[in-house]
Amino acid sequence: MKSFINVQDLGPLDKAMAEAFEIKNDRYKYQHLGKNKTLMMIFFNNSLRTRLSTQKAAMNLGMNVIVLDVNAGAWKLETERGVIMDGDKSEHLLEAIPVMGCYCDLIGVRSFAGLTDREYDYAETVLHQFIKYSGKPVFAMETATVHPLQAFADLITIEEHKTVERPKVVLTWAPHCRALPQAVPNSFAEWMNAAEDVDLVITHPKGYELDPKFVGNACVEYDQKKAFEGADFIYAKNWSNPGVTNPADYGKITCEDRSWTVDTEHMSWTNNGKFMHCLPVRRNLIVTDDVIESKNSLVIPEAANREISCSVVLKRMLEAL
Amino acid sequence: MKSFINVQDLGPLDKAMAEAFEIKNDRYKYQHLGKNKTLMMIFFNNSLRTRLSTQKAAMNLGMNVIVLDVNAGAWKLETERGVIMDGDKSEHLLEAIPVMGCYCDLIGVRSFAGLTDREYDYAETVLHQFIKYSGKPVFAMETATVHPLQAFADLITIEEHKTVERPKVVLTWAPHCRALPQAVPNSFAEWMNAAEDVDLVITHPKGYELDPKFVGNACVEYDQKKAFEGADFIYAKNWSNPGVTNPADYGKITCEDRSWTVDTEHMSWTNNGKFMHCLPVRRNLIVTDDVIESKNSLVIPEAANREISCSVVLKRMLEAL
Amino acid sequence: MKSFINVQDLGPLDKAMAEAFEIKNDRYKYQHLGKNKTLMMIFFNNSLRTRLSTQKAAMNLGMNVIVLDVNAGAWKLETERGVIMDGDKSEHLLEAIPVMGCYCDLIGVRSFAGLTDREYDYAETVLHQFIKYSGKPVFAMETATVHPLQAFADLITIEEHKTVERPKVVLTWAPHCRALPQAVPNSFAEWMNAAEDVDLVITHPKGYELDPKFVGNACVEYDQKKAFEGADFIYAKNWSNPGVTNPADYGKITCEDRSWTVDTEHMSWTNNGKFMHCLPVRRNLIVTDDVIESKNSLVIPEAANREISCSVVLKRMLEAL
Repeated sequence: MKSFINVQDLGPLDKAMAEAFEIKNDRYKYQHLGKNKTLMMIFFNNSLRTRLSTQKAAMNLGMNVIVLDVNAGAWKLETERGVIMDGDKSEHLLEAIPVMGCYCDLIGVRSFAGLTDREYDYAETVLHQFIKYSGKPVFAMETATVHPLQAFADLITIEEHKTVERPKVVLTWAPHCRALPQAVPNSFAEWMNAAEDVDLVITHPKGYELDPKFVGNACVEYDQKKAFEGADFIYAKNWSNPGVTNPADYGKITCEDRSWTVDTEHMSWTNNGKFMHCLPVRRNLIVTDDVIESKNSLVIPEAANREISCSVVLKRMLEAL
Repeated sequence: MKSFINVQDLGPLDKAMAEAFEIKNDRYKYQHLGKNKTLMMIFFNNSLRTRLSTQKAAMNLGMNVIVLDVNAGAWKLETERGVIMDGDKSEHLLEAIPVMGCYCDLIGVRSFAGLTDREYDYAETVLHQFIKYSGKPVFAMETATVHPLQAFADLITIEEHKTVERPKVVLTWAPHCRALPQAVPNSFAEWMNAAEDVDLVITHPKGYELDPKFVGNACVEYDQKKAFEGADFIYAKNWSNPGVTNPADYGKITCEDRSWTVDTEHMSWTNNGKFMHCLPVRRNLIVTDDVIESKNSLVIPEAANREISCSVVLKRMLEAL
Repeated sequence: MKSFINVQDLGPLDKAMAEAFEIKNDRYKYQHLGKNKTLMMIFFNNSLRTRLSTQKAAMNLGMNVIVLDVNAGAWKLETERGVIMDGDKSEHLLEAIPVMGCYCDLIGVRSFAGLTDREYDYAETVLHQFIKYSGKPVFAMETATVHPLQAFADLITIEEHKTVERPKVVLTWAPHCRALPQAVPNSFAEWMNAAEDVDLVITHPKGYELDPKFVGNACVEYDQKKAFEGADFIYAKNWSNPGVTNPADYGKITCEDRSWTVDTEHMSWTNNGKFMHCLPVRRNLIVTDDVIESKNSLVIPEAANREISCSVVLKRMLEAL
């Protein structure tokens, strides 16, 4: 595996899932693979879960880890040719990225969407610069439009906690006070579509339609109550307007309707549904205290599975070196 | 050992001291204990000695280390239930702390006193949140009211340098230009009380009385000269007003008397006393250049023993996993 | 090797070069040397290449690594005796540096020139404080006036890419928008002088004369075109006025002449010369896009050799422990 961005990069999902459970059962089993191999984690944006779980997964595999915090403001890379670089950009990406590739074997990149230029964000410009110029395998640690390590962990969590063979999984929008990227819902939808034994329903206010390439064959239901009926899993997440229906709305908050907050009444519509969220979560905005603290809440085991999904990805990349 | 806050957490001190000297003699002896174990160091406040010595101790024991700098300003955790989190706090401690616990085996926490609310500080609120919610063993890397890794290192240092069986140890307040917590003097007093072969005298200006639970059976002497007479060890430290005598003074500087600065004349009152301080130290405010540079100054070996005290604590916690 | 600042610290260069190529061929060969040894990297200034390559080299050698970022503004060390430390300096170097030495086996220091006080900078004050007070072997990770790890990597790169037995190597000044230290050109000149099979020519505008102790026997040619004629390697670098000719100019930009920018025409004067630069580089100010992207550009392999030069230095220091 030379890059990890989309679900198909992982090959057949059943095989990947089997590896995930094998590693969860013995997380140091593949420690020999990482000997004398170095992971470089490059953060253009802050991280808690991804930083910790990726570092843990790499150490489980016996790798060395170098963490590089690139304050987006402080380290501005020039990307154009022909520019006389006498301004605030002190290095060109054509030097900076190959150099980073010199000192490691694998590269993880975190780089959020700017939410002002849809085309730039959805082109995954920063991620593809690393893929093109670093000379090393690259994986997304949440980039502008995808968060595959999260979606893979979500799938592992659903597989562990499902009580029916083919669960109904509902991705629901919920209100938030800041404009957030679409990376998590995009990848969640993509991965649930790829999982053959899941029925995915997506519910959100009109105008918040996700990009069709991620929505795939999922059922989109604008009535949140109808969507929740009979659900086995509720996956709550806010995202800002994806600008699919109206490009001018891209990255904006066009709905603040707090009736979408997942509370006990919402959960009563489900089939004793489990509650999921990728964290961090704003309580009583996305979900009430009662729901997130209930016995049906999976947010902590879901976070714990980030170590497992990342271990599979790193193992695959190490095997392909 | 599931937590390390107070001296009794370590069990019989003579056994702990024997382990300290065993480890000092061969600091890699217990390296097998830490294999595939991860220490997470969480800093809500800056650190030099604690960061370096704890990291070194963990590596001596073969552990992996993850360092997490939590700028107290940038990462505000919500602690209440029922609050609609639409302000500047982006995560609730009930999610953040269990998640950190997912990715490690042991947790060290540094979190200083705010010095505005005595009850909050002395309840060790942050530390106890980690103990209650992380699901992992937790040790204090200086918290609001205690610094046990320092006090343990101090005891090792005294044991190494004492020339009489039962030395007289004097904890003396000294002036400072900023309001400092009481964590170091609290733990020092607690540990010296616990050590059976030490005579502890505490001297400070009136109003600076430490909390009785730390003072224990120590002799409190307001006349610094009387306190110093015949002392084998002088342990200097500033602390802000503990608010024991007058709660309204808590965390304030109520004395700036520079006659308390430890100088050559002060040391002449002792029994050829050794000088100790936990560092960092403001010279010519706490202690003069002459005293801290004298052959009787133990500040560097004392700092070096931080690696040893921490090694014993981590070893104990690893054995109890 | 107890310190690494100047080329002579390495002993005979041919032996050091042989070790470099041996390590490049098997970079984990000396991994046993670093077992249970700790490198402390102390950064008073930012770093990308040096941080990554040094960390990688240390890990190749099996060392533990502690990285300490000392924001020059936040951690002001008192250096004088007798000062009452009631200002913004919270620690004296006579405590801080020995303490850092307690917790490691080797120390790397990065500390740039202030460019205001030539005498202070050229005395390498900070570096020598670490050498004097840390009690541990110390190496320069670019200090006020030298960057020996870079110069050693440059020499390795020239050795790998030379096509004649005794290449003509030209160190050329180039314009820049900010005042930069002389560390890189100083060390480059020093190392090229020490290499017996190199003809070094230095070219720069009048007034930019480097310190004679680094220039040595090199030919200084003020006409850039004459200097470039027949060159096998062009090493471009900006530096601010070294204040050799006119002390009042120290650290200032006294020339902004962009005719010195290395472009295709400049390279046409050479003997099919290779282009080198230590990076980061400001394109179209130091060098044009065409030249740095040409097949004759060595900037990436040169950066990659930083891992090799550092490995040799760490290996030597570990062997001498």
